[in-house]
Amino acid sequence: MKKGGPLLYRGKAKSVYLTDNPEEVSVEFRDDITAFDGEKSAVLEDKGVYNAAVSSFFFEYLEIHGVKTHYIHMLDRRTMLVRRLSMIPLEIIVRNIAAGSIVKKYPFTEGQVLKPTVMVIDYKDDARHDPMINDDIIFALGLVTREELLTMRKMALKVNDLLRTYLAGLSISLVDFKMEFGRYRSEILVGDELSMDSMRLWDGKTRDSLDKDVYRFDKGDVRTTYAAVAERITPGALHRFEAEKTVFSGGGQE
Amino acid sequence: MKKGGPLLYRGKAKSVYLTDNPEEVSVEFRDDITAFDGEKSAVLEDKGVYNAAVSSFFFEYLEIHGVKTHYIHMLDRRTMLVRRLSMIPLEIIVRNIAAGSIVKKYPFTEGQVLKPTVMVIDYKDDARHDPMINDDIIFALGLVTREELLTMRKMALKVNDLLRTYLAGLSISLVDFKMEFGRYRSEILVGDELSMDSMRLWDGKTRDSLDKDVYRFDKGDVRTTYAAVAERITPGALHRFEAEKTVFSGGGQE
Repeated sequence: MKKGGPLLYRGKAKSVYLTDNPEEVSVEFRDDITAFDGEKSAVLEDKGVYNAAVSSFFFEYLEIHGVKTHYIHMLDRRTMLVRRLSMIPLEIIVRNIAAGSIVKKYPFTEGQVLKPTVMVIDYKDDARHDPMINDDIIFALGLVTREELLTMRKMALKVNDLLRTYLAGLSISLVDFKMEFGRYRSEILVGDELSMDSMRLWDGKTRDSLDKDVYRFDKGDVRTTYAAVAERITPGALHRFEAEKTVFSGGGQE
Repeated sequence: MKKGGPLLYRGKAKSVYLTDNPEEVSVEFRDDITAFDGEKSAVLEDKGVYNAAVSSFFFEYLEIHGVKTHYIHMLDRRTMLVRRLSMIPLEIIVRNIAAGSIVKKYPFTEGQVLKPTVMVIDYKDDARHDPMINDDIIFALGLVTREELLTMRKMALKVNDLLRTYLAGLSISLVDFKMEFGRYRSEILVGDELSMDSMRLWDGKTRDSLDKDVYRFDKGDVRTTYAAVAERITPGALHRFEAEKTVFSGGGQE
């Protein structure tokens, strides 16, 4: 298996590379971390490894429980081989507990349990700062069909149930998380990542942040937090590629 | 009929007064006009009269066609007697053609016909700048029941059909409009106003703005536009209170 071909796309924290197979790409979790629409940024050693471990663990977990994702397998400790999706430019945010932007925008109290579970959909467009969108606008823009949106909503709620339950067993509260979907052949698959960058996780007892909020709001040592959370969520998984310390370099035509 | 008692609420362009009947209030359409979250404001002689004429005309038109509103009757040319509602803090915006904020927020072209018709709901909260909201958040905040929201959506679409058809007959395009609802006894009624301040209207031929955009974007003489539109929409109605030139003063305990 060749690990990476030409760079296809470089995001804020991940790089996507072509592979020999036109239906597969490899996703490298870099050590970059950004917040506040890119206004704050840093490089934290091995941060990409921790996010890759958690993402791969969750994708495998979802697949086992019948949720289809883009995940195939890991290539090295920070690189994931995935099905190449035609990405849908929507961010599906599922919120179980009020925290972050929803508390600023509406009269919720930080920590308030949300009943019902709140799903918010943002239109993924950096230049427009990912505005919140609704079903009518999604259809008027022709982004997905009604059937596809229904599928995405159902999948997002199922992912929420699965992850919330799994994390509760570790005494971690799944406060909220963000998902992205894409089309593969004629199916909708979960894409992107499921990591400390895209979730808000609180320790069940101390309520300490176990996610990017530690970086956003300078709540402690981010690297230590990410390492501990990855170890807690994915027991043993971090050591899977221990032998292979070569960081995937990617990029460049060979 | 006593026209007005103590001031109950003073909004940006209307004042609401108590009456002898605890289930009724009077709404005075003032000559104030504001835009951009109150950043721009002016006083335009008789502007309130034009908006009151159009609002009362539309409320009567809706009632005739089976849509229940707060409207009872006019007290003078700028004052409306209405049922006192318990207002629901939501703004229901119905958009037939892309214009204004939706063109800035999403990749629509100004003037693009929206398919389907787009409904957007904003949470009415000046301090929070009326953020867009969705059904899940509405329910999590306990603002309305599922049944009430469904009723509001159905009423808004019916109002859109009725007004769009009526205005099309005058060669006026109903680009978009904003509605508010309230509870009266156990019913949901259309409240607030339906005027050039809350609608975006374009001349069917010239596409000239016939609404508050003339004020927002300095497109011409606002007073002349409002007077002409009111005369066009409500033939004869402006002269109903011609004899009674006394402007309702309201306010103050008697």
